[in-house]
Amino acid sequence: MKKKLLSAISCLILLNTTSLLFAQGTRTEHDLLGDKQIPNDAYYGVQTARALENFRVSSMPTSFFPDYVKAFAIVKLAAARANTQVGRMKPEKLQAIEKACQAVMDGKYHDQFLVDMYQGGAGTSANMNANEVLANIALELSGHKKGEYNIIEPHDDLNMGQSTNDSYPTAIKIALLLHNDKLVKEATALAQAFHKKGDEFKGIVKMGRTEGQDAVPMTLGQEFHAFGVQLDAEIAAMKKVEAALCDQNMGATAIGTGITASPGYAEKCAVELAKITGKPIVMSKDLIAATSSQQAFVLYSSVLKSFAVALSKISSDLIILASGPRTGIFEINLPALQPGSSIMPGKVNPVMPELMNEVCYKVIGNDVTVTLAAQNGLLQLNAYEPVEAIAIMESQGLLFKSMPLFRKNCIEGITANKDVLEKYINRSVGIVTALNPVLGYEKTTELAKEALTSGKGIIELIREKKLLTEAQIKKLLDPVALTGEKQ
Amino acid sequence: MKKKLLSAISCLILLNTTSLLFAQGTRTEHDLLGDKQIPNDAYYGVQTARALENFRVSSMPTSFFPDYVKAFAIVKLAAARANTQVGRMKPEKLQAIEKACQAVMDGKYHDQFLVDMYQGGAGTSANMNANEVLANIALELSGHKKGEYNIIEPHDDLNMGQSTNDSYPTAIKIALLLHNDKLVKEATALAQAFHKKGDEFKGIVKMGRTEGQDAVPMTLGQEFHAFGVQLDAEIAAMKKVEAALCDQNMGATAIGTGITASPGYAEKCAVELAKITGKPIVMSKDLIAATSSQQAFVLYSSVLKSFAVALSKISSDLIILASGPRTGIFEINLPALQPGSSIMPGKVNPVMPELMNEVCYKVIGNDVTVTLAAQNGLLQLNAYEPVEAIAIMESQGLLFKSMPLFRKNCIEGITANKDVLEKYINRSVGIVTALNPVLGYEKTTELAKEALTSGKGIIELIREKKLLTEAQIKKLLDPVALTGEKQ
Amino acid sequence: MKKKLLSAISCLILLNTTSLLFAQGTRTEHDLLGDKQIPNDAYYGVQTARALENFRVSSMPTSFFPDYVKAFAIVKLAAARANTQVGRMKPEKLQAIEKACQAVMDGKYHDQFLVDMYQGGAGTSANMNANEVLANIALELSGHKKGEYNIIEPHDDLNMGQSTNDSYPTAIKIALLLHNDKLVKEATALAQAFHKKGDEFKGIVKMGRTEGQDAVPMTLGQEFHAFGVQLDAEIAAMKKVEAALCDQNMGATAIGTGITASPGYAEKCAVELAKITGKPIVMSKDLIAATSSQQAFVLYSSVLKSFAVALSKISSDLIILASGPRTGIFEINLPALQPGSSIMPGKVNPVMPELMNEVCYKVIGNDVTVTLAAQNGLLQLNAYEPVEAIAIMESQGLLFKSMPLFRKNCIEGITANKDVLEKYINRSVGIVTALNPVLGYEKTTELAKEALTSGKGIIELIREKKLLTEAQIKKLLDPVALTGEKQ
Amino acid sequence: MKKKLLSAISCLILLNTTSLLFAQGTRTEHDLLGDKQIPNDAYYGVQTARALENFRVSSMPTSFFPDYVKAFAIVKLAAARANTQVGRMKPEKLQAIEKACQAVMDGKYHDQFLVDMYQGGAGTSANMNANEVLANIALELSGHKKGEYNIIEPHDDLNMGQSTNDSYPTAIKIALLLHNDKLVKEATALAQAFHKKGDEFKGIVKMGRTEGQDAVPMTLGQEFHAFGVQLDAEIAAMKKVEAALCDQNMGATAIGTGITASPGYAEKCAVELAKITGKPIVMSKDLIAATSSQQAFVLYSSVLKSFAVALSKISSDLIILASGPRTGIFEINLPALQPGSSIMPGKVNPVMPELMNEVCYKVIGNDVTVTLAAQNGLLQLNAYEPVEAIAIMESQGLLFKSMPLFRKNCIEGITANKDVLEKYINRSVGIVTALNPVLGYEKTTELAKEALTSGKGIIELIREKKLLTEAQIKKLLDPVALTGEKQ
Repeated sequence: MKKKLLSAISCLILLNTTSLLFAQGTRTEHDLLGDKQIPNDAYYGVQTARALENFRVSSMPTSFFPDYVKAFAIVKLAAARANTQVGRMKPEKLQAIEKACQAVMDGKYHDQFLVDMYQGGAGTSANMNANEVLANIALELSGHKKGEYNIIEPHDDLNMGQSTNDSYPTAIKIALLLHNDKLVKEATALAQAFHKKGDEFKGIVKMGRTEGQDAVPMTLGQEFHAFGVQLDAEIAAMKKVEAALCDQNMGATAIGTGITASPGYAEKCAVELAKITGKPIVMSKDLIAATSSQQAFVLYSSVLKSFAVALSKISSDLIILASGPRTGIFEINLPALQPGSSIMPGKVNPVMPELMNEVCYKVIGNDVTVTLAAQNGLLQLNAYEPVEAIAIMESQGLLFKSMPLFRKNCIEGITANKDVLEKYINRSVGIVTALNPVLGYEKTTELAKEALTSGKGIIELIREKKLLTEAQIKKLLDPVALTGEKQ
Repeated sequence: MKKKLLSAISCLILLNTTSLLFAQGTRTEHDLLGDKQIPNDAYYGVQTARALENFRVSSMPTSFFPDYVKAFAIVKLAAARANTQVGRMKPEKLQAIEKACQAVMDGKYHDQFLVDMYQGGAGTSANMNANEVLANIALELSGHKKGEYNIIEPHDDLNMGQSTNDSYPTAIKIALLLHNDKLVKEATALAQAFHKKGDEFKGIVKMGRTEGQDAVPMTLGQEFHAFGVQLDAEIAAMKKVEAALCDQNMGATAIGTGITASPGYAEKCAVELAKITGKPIVMSKDLIAATSSQQAFVLYSSVLKSFAVALSKISSDLIILASGPRTGIFEINLPALQPGSSIMPGKVNPVMPELMNEVCYKVIGNDVTVTLAAQNGLLQLNAYEPVEAIAIMESQGLLFKSMPLFRKNCIEGITANKDVLEKYINRSVGIVTALNPVLGYEKTTELAKEALTSGKGIIELIREKKLLTEAQIKKLLDPVALTGEKQ
Repeated sequence: MKKKLLSAISCLILLNTTSLLFAQGTRTEHDLLGDKQIPNDAYYGVQTARALENFRVSSMPTSFFPDYVKAFAIVKLAAARANTQVGRMKPEKLQAIEKACQAVMDGKYHDQFLVDMYQGGAGTSANMNANEVLANIALELSGHKKGEYNIIEPHDDLNMGQSTNDSYPTAIKIALLLHNDKLVKEATALAQAFHKKGDEFKGIVKMGRTEGQDAVPMTLGQEFHAFGVQLDAEIAAMKKVEAALCDQNMGATAIGTGITASPGYAEKCAVELAKITGKPIVMSKDLIAATSSQQAFVLYSSVLKSFAVALSKISSDLIILASGPRTGIFEINLPALQPGSSIMPGKVNPVMPELMNEVCYKVIGNDVTVTLAAQNGLLQLNAYEPVEAIAIMESQGLLFKSMPLFRKNCIEGITANKDVLEKYINRSVGIVTALNPVLGYEKTTELAKEALTSGKGIIELIREKKLLTEAQIKKLLDPVALTGEKQ
Repeated sequence: MKKKLLSAISCLILLNTTSLLFAQGTRTEHDLLGDKQIPNDAYYGVQTARALENFRVSSMPTSFFPDYVKAFAIVKLAAARANTQVGRMKPEKLQAIEKACQAVMDGKYHDQFLVDMYQGGAGTSANMNANEVLANIALELSGHKKGEYNIIEPHDDLNMGQSTNDSYPTAIKIALLLHNDKLVKEATALAQAFHKKGDEFKGIVKMGRTEGQDAVPMTLGQEFHAFGVQLDAEIAAMKKVEAALCDQNMGATAIGTGITASPGYAEKCAVELAKITGKPIVMSKDLIAATSSQQAFVLYSSVLKSFAVALSKISSDLIILASGPRTGIFEINLPALQPGSSIMPGKVNPVMPELMNEVCYKVIGNDVTVTLAAQNGLLQLNAYEPVEAIAIMESQGLLFKSMPLFRKNCIEGITANKDVLEKYINRSVGIVTALNPVLGYEKTTELAKEALTSGKGIIELIREKKLLTEAQIKKLLDPVALTGEKQ
């Protein structure tokens, strides 16, 4: 709650930078383009201030994605430690920076990460926002005033041995890794919910359908387990693709040649990142390739897309299975969450699978955005990482938020309409298929044809024509046995 | 038939250029890169020969799209006429070129348009293929030998006042216009088939469904008319977007400045193109913009995409409506075209709507290809016109070929299962909606709820509760009246 | 400012519904699913409250898009007026509802439109949110208390003769129309900025480039005018496609049969909508088709996509033209907005075209989302309108916000590097093209080859070889004349 | 050659089924829909004949993809062996079928696989085409006549224990696996070509560029190695994703319950498939899930898309690096393959990278097609596998055919313009970056600014201002050292 309030307040601050903050007085900062007044209580500095003016496009500041803010702090912490280990940063400076990074990792100061997610400059503004805020936090926490950059400097200290071109994509990848854990957890809970229903629905025989046409018997339990298994496969892919995100280019600096980075620093950065995150992060084997092309985003986004395709297909299946109640398939009931219609009384709609589909269509569209951004990289850098981050984080967030709603408000409450399911089994001619091995395809085809035109049942016809003995009928045409469900 | 044989033979020729044609002896041609032997009976020349070596990617030569070959001849004819009108080309040369162009427009020599549709060079090879072939046809038809370029020259005469950068996109646009006419015709026939069924199914009351749930009554005729109307709207868009294709850059030459073109030529070109094609072709008002960016392809492809979305939605609806026979909606029957299953005897699948969907998914994917190609233009030219042409012509061709199959083998043979439709109407509680204005939403909601839980019919309950008189029931709840179908 | 504060506060309210509002006491409301406590000062009612629990997916309430809130008020106002005109609503009730709608249209009460943009149920929650809020405002403004639904009722009065299935898509279309006006205005300003630069850069000769290779001369003014013209064409398409958005299905109610709507109401609705919006809104000619398939969204989104393709191509061109300063093309300078790099001092990056590209990639991805949503409609309704609205409104908003930044901070400040442009012209051999008509393609090819291998200039060679007289050189090879720029 | 001729002839046969083949007399076959005349020398039967009439959409028969025909033979062979092992098929029948399958695997009879790749029915026609052709070949090779189905029957024997729903997707997956090997081989050769150039260009210092702006030094060798490394990563992904294709549903039969399949057969099928293909093929652990959803196609297509994104980005980089010769970057030369322009003499265009881009845009579009097809699966089956197969096989084929052209005709012939590269290095101020650790960001920024405005070189300024000693300059600013290239 407190976090949400903070975030809402940060939102207010963003909107009222001028009016609210200037009340506190200002300090002067300057950069290549000249001097600029910064509100005294702002932890950010001149470059952030410029970015706030340049990029007002969406209402999403960096802080819209808390894992992302955290990831910046992790990157800066790892870099500071690696710089200290190679003897370039003094231990006392490290101490101050560590405190600052830890505070942000603990969820503090997120309201200072104000730069719009949409930004030109390949993430320079977001990176400088992090550098400035962490420098000023470090200053304060070590007893200095904000702006005393002669002691701790945003570029020289927080960005030491770094470029936006390595720290920015590294922060994105770490944010995606952090969020992927949560996503995997929710996706697993969802898959489990399907499996649980699969267990619950064991032994409930129903007709399978292919191409919308009556096919052969199965159980409702098998159907729900199959939903779960499909998600399981996608979750496995989500976990596997983490390897691509763990391959990082810290130490690459501007273009991958490591200019300004000290020898040994890159390797140590990867080790520190792995330590802090608990993820098997490694230094990319070719830092130039890793800076020029961030294909990890393409691969990760593709996996989210694949997940969305599977989830959407399942959602649409549920809508069909629950269609009715009087003129549809109506094999299952989805829980009623709200009156379904503003005009048709008594109607209850499949709002949760629909919600899920909406999210999935957005995720699939976002994958095309990532494709375009990746494809338009130019020479030594892909400058479109910001929109890759936006698209993927949006996809992660939407899936993460909607899956538990889908699970709790829909999947867990699904019930079977056993009478309907049974009626279909009795009515269908699909079990004739089971006679192929005994009677041959041609003979069974004739039988099916006759059943469909006469309206008679298959077993009825078999008995009439004395094609099988009662024992054979029992053995060959037992619906439960035909489903092959493990007993 | 003959045309198809010719095309198959051209295919053979393509595969066997060396072995088959060299038997006839060769002539020597040369270009910037040096000399090259050309089979004596080939109408193409040295640049085509190079392209045949450079681009062997797909099995689609220009001649794969006959309208496209025809379009090249149209472009060259218009240019030659315009050049003559401005006094640059001699009338006798025009005469020879006119004959050559006319022959190709009549479907001859298509087997000489051999260059792979996939090609680098922004279409230079396809354009030079046309220039060379038409020059040699012109030579032969005016009593000369192939290769006597001192008389008629591929560059200087056939490409006079032109660049690939204007003649190539113009040829594509004309090909698309020619094919769009055919497409509109087939799409219209398809829409008409739906309307005809709409008339046939007039008065057959059924339950409408929203979100898969029972909604309120309509007629099957209304449903099929609505399918037709949806297509009508897309067809209107297809016709409207022709304006974009009619805006052409002939006379732009290399980059739109008209270098090498004679004054007045560009305007006359547009007039001639309009005359030959019967389409309202105009000269683009800014030839530089029109050469740099070929957004007409984006807009036209978008309309094909939109058509595909509508057609695919309709196809999927048909699959649902025909689902069954025993465990689905089963309101309509699609004609049986082939045994439906290699394993399940008696099964008949909705193969035509499925085919239609496959085509639509390909068309939608092709739109993304066009988007990428257009987006990657560079400065004064979009060099990716070849793949735009491929994607759009493929989409046109697939739709053109599959729509009549869909119409004849599916739509025209659809029949209604009246007993099923009636059963649903009697069973459903959806008609309660009609009581909103009389009883209010809250009251009708309670009624619906009671009907659904008790299993009773709405009218039964109304009578029980004496909510309406018999006269009111008749007036307010007559299903046919509720559909609002015009009588 | 005030509006922004209100919106931020609405954000706070959203986050703290329970804690903050319950302090004021509650009233009891009920629906099909039972009773529910509603905070006393909330204008929304029970169905909104359920939706707030069901859909917490994004942080975007309806009020995130003010034009959309306004559009709901417009729709309800038009419906109330039409209902009064057909004698179904009493004038005094209309008066109260008119006041409520007008207040919302004036920007008040937006904080009550709280339902998440992502929602299942085909927009029922958003529609009911509007019905409830407007009913309670109407109650208050006519001297009653919130919740006195016996006087004015959300369903029976605010939703009179309506269904979500007509009022919701109508509200979306009106919101898009309102926002399209703003978009067209900003796009036009951007196009104008390019044209103004085109005028400023008139007469500055430069080399055109095709396929990245030196081509022939043009002026920088022509290049910038061509950028403007490309946008002009897209803007024309944006305006044209409004016709699709003006075709609306009010009066369709649930599935297009007009159930519960009074005769004549649908036609009058369209007239009222046209009056209020000033747009040529008409009643769709087949309300069943118009409810089942909302292709207007596909067409409108396609036009935004096409605009994004054009804009992105232009942005990438600017990045190339401004590349350098020492190792690139460097024909133009983009204004420096911020220090370009966190590591490379003095670097100034093309942040604005990059920002523009990011926005464009998102817009293009959103078009795929719309495609999927439209393609997945089922029978009488497309339930995925919410995500279509989200995707398109996001695209509109991003373009609307970023275009003025691009214009003011980039385009308007572009300057030409005349010395660079001139150096290229002098160096290039491309002007040889102009000699084609005089010397023939073969001869000029040899000349070009010699120039390129020898390093000599074209004019130098012509003089050496005495191919032309000085007068001819002056006439044929004057760069300014070759550009064909109108003087 | 012979194979190509055969394929061309098969094309002729397809076009002339009626006229050419009926000359040989016919035999009568029949199915659920009635009798049908089949040309005597046709190996296919009645169901293929129906499909030839139903689906004439593209000009691509199954035989268009030879690996796909081969894959069908492999599937049928594995099934026959597994059926024999479980005691259901007699060894003598197996012997006949084995011979038939082997013949097709050896490239014979491909001309009989005539069904259009586009087809409704979830692949039933393609599967039955394979069943019929293999049955008739088996009959002939074991001394019988075509059509003697009492001896070997297409359904009962060739389709024994199978459904289209397992054998068809299995055949697709095996075809993709077979082709993926070839693709990986060509992709590897391409990556190697880049690495070889990387070795060749070692030590050639150049300026790196980020966001189109001058950045810091690197070597041309590093740049080309990075191209190779990017492809290496994609190739690794291509290999990894094979695991998804190796997970197969043979034994699932109609919906995954294994109806009509003998116990043990499914497991043995997987073993046989693994043996024949040499790939680690396994039986899917949930055959119902594996039949309902074919996500392997989504994942594999995504990897092709990712490859295309990387390859396209590299191609575009080459176009920029080779831009010029007089007005571009011009750091490298691409081999001249053909005269570049039909109007601009002497122009040589980057036709190979352009070709590559065209192919990549098509591959990316095809991925969207696969997404749509997968997303539209319905309940127990995804009936859109045919278009998934078409899209992916087209992508594989295009990449496979174009990569060697790109490699041989472009990459292997690239040369460096050393003078240009050196000029850029000398001119640029980017090396100032290296002074950050020594002078601090602020100081170096001032230096860069002064260099850019004064036109002076960085080293010149350093000497003027005595900021570093000559020894320091040598140590800190040696371009070769700054590239970090391993010596």
